Amino acid sequence: MASSIAHDIALEISPKPGDRIEELSTPRPIIDEDRLAANIARVQSYMDAHGLNFRPHIKTHKIPALAHAQVAAGAKGINCQKITEAEVFAKAGFEDILITFNILGAEKLARLSALNDRIAGLKVVADSMVTVDGLSDWFAARKPLTVLVECDTGGARCGVQSPAQAAALGKHIAGKPGLVFGGLMNYPKPNDAAATQAFLVEAVALLKNDGIECPIVSNGGTPSLFEAHLVTAATEHRAGTYIYNDRSMVRAGHCREEDCAMHILATVVSRPTEDRAVIDAGSKALTSDLLGFADYGQVVGYPDAVIKGLSEEHGVIDLSNCIGPRPEIGDKIRIIPNHTCVVSNLFDQMVFHRDGVVTRVEDVAARGLVW
Amino acid sequence: MASSIAHDIALEISPKPGDRIEELSTPRPIIDEDRLAANIARVQSYMDAHGLNFRPHIKTHKIPALAHAQVAAGAKGINCQKITEAEVFAKAGFEDILITFNILGAEKLARLSALNDRIAGLKVVADSMVTVDGLSDWFAARKPLTVLVECDTGGARCGVQSPAQAAALGKHIAGKPGLVFGGLMNYPKPNDAAATQAFLVEAVALLKNDGIECPIVSNGGTPSLFEAHLVTAATEHRAGTYIYNDRSMVRAGHCREEDCAMHILATVVSRPTEDRAVIDAGSKALTSDLLGFADYGQVVGYPDAVIKGLSEEHGVIDLSNCIGPRPEIGDKIRIIPNHTCVVSNLFDQMVFHRDGVVTRVEDVAARGLVW
Repeated sequence: MASSIAHDIALEISPKPGDRIEELSTPRPIIDEDRLAANIARVQSYMDAHGLNFRPHIKTHKIPALAHAQVAAGAKGINCQKITEAEVFAKAGFEDILITFNILGAEKLARLSALNDRIAGLKVVADSMVTVDGLSDWFAARKPLTVLVECDTGGARCGVQSPAQAAALGKHIAGKPGLVFGGLMNYPKPNDAAATQAFLVEAVALLKNDGIECPIVSNGGTPSLFEAHLVTAATEHRAGTYIYNDRSMVRAGHCREEDCAMHILATVVSRPTEDRAVIDAGSKALTSDLLGFADYGQVVGYPDAVIKGLSEEHGVIDLSNCIGPRPEIGDKIRIIPNHTCVVSNLFDQMVFHRDGVVTRVEDVAARGLVW
Repeated sequence: MASSIAHDIALEISPKPGDRIEELSTPRPIIDEDRLAANIARVQSYMDAHGLNFRPHIKTHKIPALAHAQVAAGAKGINCQKITEAEVFAKAGFEDILITFNILGAEKLARLSALNDRIAGLKVVADSMVTVDGLSDWFAARKPLTVLVECDTGGARCGVQSPAQAAALGKHIAGKPGLVFGGLMNYPKPNDAAATQAFLVEAVALLKNDGIECPIVSNGGTPSLFEAHLVTAATEHRAGTYIYNDRSMVRAGHCREEDCAMHILATVVSRPTEDRAVIDAGSKALTSDLLGFADYGQVVGYPDAVIKGLSEEHGVIDLSNCIGPRPEIGDKIRIIPNHTCVVSNLFDQMVFHRDGVVTRVEDVAARGLVW
């Protein structure tokens, strides 16, 4: 093999400002600048109106420029899920970073303390003695780390199970060398503000009885974000998806279809039968996230088209319920993804546009970092 | 913000040969060298025994070094799904490349012809007059491109629907300037060798009646790969997943659990309840591909553990059916993913090991290329 290795083929494929979106090769996620800006403004206005600090979760976009826009609009700090994400955003100038994850293991602790040495506002969460004691053992001889107690107020993921457990773990953190107790954090079930409020109020009160204050009480989530003001025990709210929005957020009532800033541009590459269209966006572009839907995204302009199956690079669309024109081979279509955050994680660059004209291309700087 | 930007934090996290797998931070996909080599050898031996040319699909690993190993074992060429994948592998020295996709649009055609100018054995497929005519218009004044007709022999994705359509499109290609008719290609339904054989035999005969030979008849798929010899009309077989194998291939009967070369190493980060464990591998490590399973992977050593839900960076495991020891906070576990090909697409590097000791780290060179 290899008689004429193609060293000169450029692998970079980066649209330029001024390019027209409909001319881009596909599949490509594209972001509408005006919708993006409106989503940032709408949520920040709500937080401001209710006196809630806002901490956007950067997992949705992984792009420092967008987090800068969120902070410029009024966000107090940012939320990361991984140490490596926090490192990227610290490099980009962010100091107030909450990592909402239990950090375990020597390698991660070493990187966490290196990061803590360099920025002023690093915070993590913990939900067990094991995690807390591991943090304390590492940070005892170093610059102290701020740790919040993660509470399961209904989300059924991580978190202590009761206000009494939250208070006990908070007291434990407060007494541990190398650690500063930072307050409480929860990952709530949507539309469950009353239960969240009850849990947090009780936990705060129990800690106060022991003379321990909660500087931060951090509630979260986009789906029922506009009920955040009902959780008066919280000092701040975290949300990620709201910046792009997606099909699941439309269903949750958080936004309208026309608030979805991310579309996946795809091309119809085959029409093997009257009722079947195949596009060049599969699970490596849309992801397989169903989030309770029966299909893999909403085709803009074809409300009765059903993306019924995905291969890695093919999406199979059932057109049998479509009344009126059907997309033909070569047509470009746009898809609102079920879940925007996972799409961001598949692409090294994100293309932005206004009225169909490319405005900028941003590196998805924190994409694919291992932990 | 940004008073002490952390310019000096190294973002690269690359294990070194000699590192022990159980010391790696998680989540991390890891590849067992011996299983990998055995999977390559087993399938190549089968193909050799039946006189079938073998064309591995690189979508599963996207790593040139692994494709070189596949070719060294006897594979005739490689299969790519995207032009950009083919470019990466052309750069790495591969010449016999079949892109099993309908290529449409000026930008893709320009890159396709640039690639065709540089390597000897580039081939693509088409399943419509629209695609064929687009290729012919572009290649008429350039080095001719070899085009195969994609046939839907039961896979219900792309492809012409009947042998008569296949013959008609093949004849059309053969008469078009700039194109060389290369034969037939199909994406079959598993366990459907008889239908595949019947379709291909008839299409080949119809073309022969018109004096048109099929140099290549390319059948494919891992799930029922060991029935490839029943499709005697085929001159070659394509398969990707076999090199790593995964839970869906175990279910399909293609391999055993101990033939799965890829595991996802994860850490238990929380045990909020007696029956719930939370790991640091979520949909951004395992993907949401269910492929008909009820949960998101098989936990090695805990056959009754159910990975019932994934957030982006958390996996929630239901332990309620587990008899015996349950994993504790800090424990590292291994997961056999439902679908290995989509996991490869999430990570920039893949870590290989033998008996738990890192042997090498390979860049996933064709990961995340846009099209």
